[in-house]
Formats: sequence, structure tokens, C-alpha cells
Amino acid sequence: MSTSVTVLAGGVGGARLAHGFALALPDGGAPADGGGLTCVVNVGDDTERHGLHVSPDLDTVMYTLARLNDEERGWGLTDESYATLAQLERLGEDTWFTLGDKDLATHVVRTARLREGVPLSEVTAALTAALGVRARLLPVTDDPLRTRVSTPSGTLAFQEYFVRRQHADAVLGLTFDGIGSARPAPGVLDAVTGPDLLVVAPSNPFLSVEPVLGVAGVRDAVRTSPARRVAVSPIVGGQAVKGPAAQVLETLGHEVSALGVARLYAGVVDTMVIDDADAALAGPVEDLGLDVIVTDTIMRGPAGRERLARELLATVGPR
Amino acid sequence: MSTSVTVLAGGVGGARLAHGFALALPDGGAPADGGGLTCVVNVGDDTERHGLHVSPDLDTVMYTLARLNDEERGWGLTDESYATLAQLERLGEDTWFTLGDKDLATHVVRTARLREGVPLSEVTAALTAALGVRARLLPVTDDPLRTRVSTPSGTLAFQEYFVRRQHADAVLGLTFDGIGSARPAPGVLDAVTGPDLLVVAPSNPFLSVEPVLGVAGVRDAVRTSPARRVAVSPIVGGQAVKGPAAQVLETLGHEVSALGVARLYAGVVDTMVIDDADAALAGPVEDLGLDVIVTDTIMRGPAGRERLARELLATVGPR
Repeated sequence: MSTSVTVLAGGVGGARLAHGFALALPDGGAPADGGGLTCVVNVGDDTERHGLHVSPDLDTVMYTLARLNDEERGWGLTDESYATLAQLERLGEDTWFTLGDKDLATHVVRTARLREGVPLSEVTAALTAALGVRARLLPVTDDPLRTRVSTPSGTLAFQEYFVRRQHADAVLGLTFDGIGSARPAPGVLDAVTGPDLLVVAPSNPFLSVEPVLGVAGVRDAVRTSPARRVAVSPIVGGQAVKGPAAQVLETLGHEVSALGVARLYAGVVDTMVIDDADAALAGPVEDLGLDVIVTDTIMRGPAGRERLARELLATVGPR
Repeated sequence: MSTSVTVLAGGVGGARLAHGFALALPDGGAPADGGGLTCVVNVGDDTERHGLHVSPDLDTVMYTLARLNDEERGWGLTDESYATLAQLERLGEDTWFTLGDKDLATHVVRTARLREGVPLSEVTAALTAALGVRARLLPVTDDPLRTRVSTPSGTLAFQEYFVRRQHADAVLGLTFDGIGSARPAPGVLDAVTGPDLLVVAPSNPFLSVEPVLGVAGVRDAVRTSPARRVAVSPIVGGQAVKGPAAQVLETLGHEVSALGVARLYAGVVDTMVIDDADAALAGPVEDLGLDVIVTDTIMRGPAGRERLARELLATVGPR
């Protein structure tokens, strides 16, 4: 038997930790002997660009696990060109959402299959297989789910907020259109209740994790899962490792610290992973009724990812 | 007043002659003072690739008039790259229909607009405007119309026959799916009845011109148009200038010559343009009741195209 791990993931933070598990588990996290890696990924940031269905978080995880991602930039593929985008601009399209030529192939195929009625989860399985990803990627839902961001400038579609306006607006509130009727994609609830280790990735708690937990049945399945349930804080030393997590916590009235994050996840997970830099917060986090792991959470390069993954795997022991 | 010209066109032959008129008319054939160039283009060769709506003949004419086409190859754009296509192949897509990165932008935009319910004629107008084309391009119809080719190997979708199998199969017959219900796109009938000069381009009479003439009302509008009605033979010296016109004429039981073509167009146009190489056929063509122009029809380069266009314009005289 090998260990089974499920990661609840948004974009970059989720992708990096998932990559760590893919490196730490046998055969890149391929399902075997009851073990393997499953990523349940946010789709609230999905968008339509030029008529194509784009799933940025799914693609970030997929490209990262396929070792095709642009590590430096955090999104998209390495060795990209932008000939189609330049021509789209010439044809009068709004091109603030950067799409590379290779990346476009993903969106073209995904859109074609979705139009044929193939569910997103099946499309994702085909794309990951084609790119040689051994782990299993699941969109949290096959149903439409779109994050909308309330800001002082009005309500924005997620990618308007995140990419076009570079998450510069204060986040006053969030809505997740469709979340009331979205059903978990096939395999999602099993992936939450079944594994040895269930990890909430160091993704944005509100922008990335909430639209995963908020899908019908997922939060309860996490709460009651017999798995070891671990969350990794995306806040280190009072700052977000990447992205707008700090601002979002602040404007939504939460403490911008690993403790603030722990308060959000108390009752959802049983263990909180905080960075060495936040060792002083271990006591207050424990006071929330959570086990605490204090370690280096920054995941510098593949080795750093694998090290963190192995440390988390150690909490469930060998099987 | 300037002269008004309408060209009924398929792909390369139509594009070249249309380009000649764009060069010969004021302002690239832009509509003005009742003059200008209109191209009514075949859409029977339209296809869906990777979920994208591709209109090869429309694009060949559009790219040629925009001076963006790959002259040597006869289709697609100059300075193309193929990064998306290579990635589509990696994702398991069938990539026998070559689509360049820049070309893809056209199909992406067209598909997006069509999905929004914008008619093909309006999409085409927007695309041509964006690319600086001054002449007017009209798909013969906004309705679905698909050429299917009966061959000894069975019935093939047009691009299966033309591109995938490189028009190597004998053409035993043609059907034009949807032609019974396809209505002429807005402007098409006016473009046929209104101009000073109406030209059937040296395109394939069966594969390119028939699905134009066959749309409800178009053939009758051509027959009864008060315009000077001219057809340019795509057969020179018993051979097709380009493509499978010779084979198709032969297997469908027609003489493979400018005379054979003239027989097809007798009663449709009043004047037949044949090449100097076919001067001996002038008499027999006249015997069909057609006026005959014998000239160099090969259109070598832009200068050759413009020369032929000017010669045809001379038949309607200055206005």
C-alpha cells in the first residue's frame, strides 16, 4: 500500500505543494494500491476569453505537474510564443488576459469538448493524460461556478479583478455565482473522505479555497473525513507568499497572520502548518484546538516542495 | 462615378482576380460613388476544426486582399508559426488541417462571434475591416452549407477530400448540404443585380462556383442581372491552373477545356474569358452564344492580376 493524498488547491500555491507530493509519492502520484495523489481544484476563477473556456487554476496545477509551467512567472507555459494573441489584438479583441500559443491549445480543446457536452472533469482527465501527468486532477465541480469580487469600484468578474486590474482593488466581499446549485464533480467527495492525508494547500483562503469548500457537501466531507486533515498557511510573517491573500484577509476583517488563517480553518482541518517565521503563533493556534506543525513552508524549487510534502506525509506514517 | 464590380469567388483563383480588381479600382475597391468591389464567396468548404469555424475560401480572399496571404503556398498567412497546432497534436488532436498561429486568431474570433449569434456576413465585415480590406466580402449565405464529395471511397466532407486526401479521389458527384434552405446573405442579391460588371472567377466550377450559384435566387439573379456578366475559365490548355478542376470536370463527364467550362456557364454569363493558349476555342465558344475575350488569364503576380482586371473593366467602359 502507498499513501493516498488529496490536495485542495487554487493556483500557484496549490500547484507547488501538489508538485511536491507528485515528487514524494511513487510514480508521480499515479493511483495505485489505494495510494496516489488527487488534486481537487478551484474553478471559480474560470473565465471565457475570445469564446474559449479558460481554467487558470486547473491549468496552473496541470502545467506544474507536467513540468511545463513557467516557474518564474507563475502561470502559463515555458517557451511560449504569442503570435495568436498579437493577431487577436489586430482583429480588435481585448487582450489583457495573456494567452500563449501553446496555452491556447489547451483552451481550444477544452472548449471544443465542453461544447460537445463532455464534462470538465473528463476533459481535464484527457488533457492531463495527454501531458503525462500521473496524478489525478479534479475540478471541484463540472457545473458553472464563477467568483465575483465586490470592490469600491463595483463588482468585478474574478479575472477582471485579478489579472486586468492586478488585484489592486480592495476586496469588500465575494460571491460565488452558481455555488448554490453546483454539485461536486464525480470523485471529489470520495477524494475528500477516502485519503490518508487531506491537505488544504497554501492558496488564498477566500479566493481559492472557499469556492472549493463551498460546493455542496465538500466542507462537511472535509470536516468529517477520517483523513489526517492539514492546512498550510499561505501567510508567512504577516505577508502573503504570493498574490493578494494579505489584502483580502485584511479588508474582510481578519487578522493577517497564520493565526488569522488558522481561525478560518479551525473546525475544518485538525492540523495547521505554519512557517518557522511564525513559530511564536504555535501556541495561539493550538489554543484553537488545532495540532500545529512548524516548518519551512516556502517551497523553494522542486526540492523544497518535495521536502514539505514528505514532512506532511510523515504525519500519517508509512502504510 | 466609378465602376462597380462583383466577383463570384472560390479560393485562390477568386482571390487573385479579386485582388486584381482591388488594385485596378480606386481606393482598393472601397465602396464609393456607386462603385467598388464586392466579392461573393463560397462557404461550402467551411469546416469545423478543433471546435473552431474555419472558412477557407473566405479567408483566402480576405488574406489576399489584405496582402497577408502566403502567395507561394496559396493558403494561410505569411510569416506564420505553428506553436498552437503542435500543442494541439500533443493533446491528441488530429492536425491534418494545418492552422497557423495567426490564422487561428481569425477562427477563434469568428467562432466566438458566431456563438454569440452574429451572422457570418457581419463577422466577415468586422474581420475584413480589422485587416484593412477596403473591398466588401460577402459569404454567399449566412446559413449552414457544406459541400460533400462522393468518391469511390465513399462520401467525404469537403476538406476531408480536399486537404486530408489532397483531392486524389475521383469525384463521382457532389451534394451541398443545406443548399435547399440556405438564403443569400444580406447584400448578395443586390451585389449580383447591381454592378456594372459581374465576374465568375476562374474558380472550380463545381467545387467553388456551383455552391454559390446554387443558393436560392443567386443563379437566377446572375442570369437576369443587367450587369456585364463575364466568366473566366479556370482551364487553360486543357489543364487546371490550380487544384482539381480538370479531374472534376472529367469524372463528372465534361470536356476538360475552356469550351467545356463555357458550356457550363452558357446561359449564366454573356461573356467567356479564355486564355491565349485556347484561342482556337474562341469560335466554338461563340457558337454557344457567348461573347469571347481571348487574353492572358494566368495572373502572374499582382501586376498580372491588375492587368486582367483592367481588361475586364474595359469591357464595361468608363463611367
